[in-house]
Amino acid sequence: MTECRTDVSHFNCRVENRIAHISLNRPERKNPLTFESYAELRDWFRDLHYVENVDAVIISANGRNFSSGGDVHEIIGPLTMMSAKELLRFTRMTGDLVKAILNCGKPVISAVDGVCVGAGAIIAMASDLRIATPEAKTAFLFARVGLAGCDMGACAILPRIIGQGRAAELFYTGRSMSADEGERWGFYNKLTSTDKLEAEALALAERIIEGPNFAHMMTKTMLQQEWSMSIEQAIEAEAQAQALCMQTEDFKRAFDAFANKQKPIFEGN
Amino acid sequence: MTECRTDVSHFNCRVENRIAHISLNRPERKNPLTFESYAELRDWFRDLHYVENVDAVIISANGRNFSSGGDVHEIIGPLTMMSAKELLRFTRMTGDLVKAILNCGKPVISAVDGVCVGAGAIIAMASDLRIATPEAKTAFLFARVGLAGCDMGACAILPRIIGQGRAAELFYTGRSMSADEGERWGFYNKLTSTDKLEAEALALAERIIEGPNFAHMMTKTMLQQEWSMSIEQAIEAEAQAQALCMQTEDFKRAFDAFANKQKPIFEGN
Amino acid sequence: MTECRTDVSHFNCRVENRIAHISLNRPERKNPLTFESYAELRDWFRDLHYVENVDAVIISANGRNFSSGGDVHEIIGPLTMMSAKELLRFTRMTGDLVKAILNCGKPVISAVDGVCVGAGAIIAMASDLRIATPEAKTAFLFARVGLAGCDMGACAILPRIIGQGRAAELFYTGRSMSADEGERWGFYNKLTSTDKLEAEALALAERIIEGPNFAHMMTKTMLQQEWSMSIEQAIEAEAQAQALCMQTEDFKRAFDAFANKQKPIFEGN
Repeated sequence: MTECRTDVSHFNCRVENRIAHISLNRPERKNPLTFESYAELRDWFRDLHYVENVDAVIISANGRNFSSGGDVHEIIGPLTMMSAKELLRFTRMTGDLVKAILNCGKPVISAVDGVCVGAGAIIAMASDLRIATPEAKTAFLFARVGLAGCDMGACAILPRIIGQGRAAELFYTGRSMSADEGERWGFYNKLTSTDKLEAEALALAERIIEGPNFAHMMTKTMLQQEWSMSIEQAIEAEAQAQALCMQTEDFKRAFDAFANKQKPIFEGN
Repeated sequence: MTECRTDVSHFNCRVENRIAHISLNRPERKNPLTFESYAELRDWFRDLHYVENVDAVIISANGRNFSSGGDVHEIIGPLTMMSAKELLRFTRMTGDLVKAILNCGKPVISAVDGVCVGAGAIIAMASDLRIATPEAKTAFLFARVGLAGCDMGACAILPRIIGQGRAAELFYTGRSMSADEGERWGFYNKLTSTDKLEAEALALAERIIEGPNFAHMMTKTMLQQEWSMSIEQAIEAEAQAQALCMQTEDFKRAFDAFANKQKPIFEGN
Repeated sequence: MTECRTDVSHFNCRVENRIAHISLNRPERKNPLTFESYAELRDWFRDLHYVENVDAVIISANGRNFSSGGDVHEIIGPLTMMSAKELLRFTRMTGDLVKAILNCGKPVISAVDGVCVGAGAIIAMASDLRIATPEAKTAFLFARVGLAGCDMGACAILPRIIGQGRAAELFYTGRSMSADEGERWGFYNKLTSTDKLEAEALALAERIIEGPNFAHMMTKTMLQQEWSMSIEQAIEAEAQAQALCMQTEDFKRAFDAFANKQKPIFEGN
């Protein structure tokens, strides 16, 4: 069985009851990303696609902050001195982290508290579900460091979550989206207090992984795939994908349970 | 003149004042779908494209419920025993129902009360407009029967109505969206009480069919077509479509009425 | 240096502190569009792409109304007498205005008061950001003049701002969207009182143009480009676009300012 790697160096990771819990480290600096943590997260999410002992991921805040994004001194400084070739290698690596999250095959829940900015906001955006505390301050603040909103897929993904007009405002001004706005606009699925944040994220993950995990993987795949299909193509793609899910044991388990007036127990195959 | 078929066996159908009223039957079981009603609805909506005595469709609740979706015993049971080939034939048939609703050329209004789940929620989603009572419980509950959210186009269409984050939550958890959430998120255009539901749906349909029905057909067509075009392609496609509408008599009727300070009476040509 | 044209005949235009202020004229008729103003606006926005003394545009109301859209007597009347070839030339010209706004390379803010209907609503929709007063009445009222909602890109763009279900209702009924709905649905970024409208629009424009204007141009470009890309293509496109922005002086200016605990002063290169 391919097991989830937890011997990571540049972020925190543990697996418990088929849920991987990860968080960025260095809370004293609000959990910035570095070249090393980007790369290690990318590799970890790529591997996750094949991992068999994990069904969902929770990305948590650490020390009451989610992430301050790319570190000013460890990332932005060096980038200002790089060639075009080196810069593209970097932006492709960060983009590859988002691709790896989207393609990992397991639902990812971000539990956001405090600062959630730059690449931190991108990681929350690339998650499937997001819950937050009222203290969450989420900013796509690339403009404030002289950059564009088109970072790691943001101009494609954020408008599909909160709408084009709101995404445009966040990109052009770099301002924080309040937790309340985030909930009203559909970025956050739920708000909860800081002391309940972890428990709520865990309850949501547990509810989801009780479900049919092969089917969840297909849902995650198709939610990404279908944006660039025509409606007719998407309906055909779903006919194929769902026919595949109908051949799983979990589908039979659900029918047998209903027939016996019981709750189905899914096994993910 | 091609008239609307009302001699249907597996759902209720009548035509009055150029509006087709349909509802699923068997209210004692909350109006489940069967192989037969799927197929007959698909054929009915396909034929509707050519029908000349109907300008809009209202899909109503029946006995205070909209639809419980695919029948557990009549659909899910048999599906668990089918081959891959047979399953794909089924999922393509259900997908063809959504395609037929999207391509029927007439605005479709779902009037939702009570249970609206599974394929029932899909039919509401595939409608152009939706109104509901506070008692409406809408669930894309495929995960609860061991399946994926990618059913009949849902992963393509639902995010375009309520946003990607909210759609993902409904698919992964299978939970009900409350009527209030439905209105806040843009799934329901309006909420109304159960005793006013039919009258509100009728008033909306009547208002719409007073309009230019050829132009409405083009609006419906283009709302589907343009999702997978580039913005530049969409603008060119609209230039052609609107130039076509400008050659209708209804466009002249509108101008003549305005010039005479009257309300235009459209005839759909 | 390529300077912004302000010697225009069919709308009002002035440039002050790198912001172009434009408004439609003839407030006594609620600022209708004519063949001439369409064409002149199209040319002005096309030229704006190359203009070096303007970083943002504010489109303002005039006499407490934004725009009543295509003039009934000067546009709709003549259109009813045109050939297919002439009609397509007209609809392509109006579509070209939207393309020109989308491709002008500078953030465009619409400040909406009072009547904002037809082509007026389209111009607001094609802007990057929108603020409005509670008196704003925004209607995509094409159905009321016998036409389809697919006008100048509306069926592609509006659903991406407010969602497919709400856009469909506005197109089929032609009804006004209230200012409050506009804010709740994500069409308007903010509501403000009539006496503060201009000041709020100016403050927003000033905040934006303090930012890195080359990067803003890339944000604007990518927000349009990526709708028809797959997510994987969009992430690669952003890797290239952001790598380009990382080679600007503004990116270095931001880093130097942060390192010196100062606010960066961007110069747009």
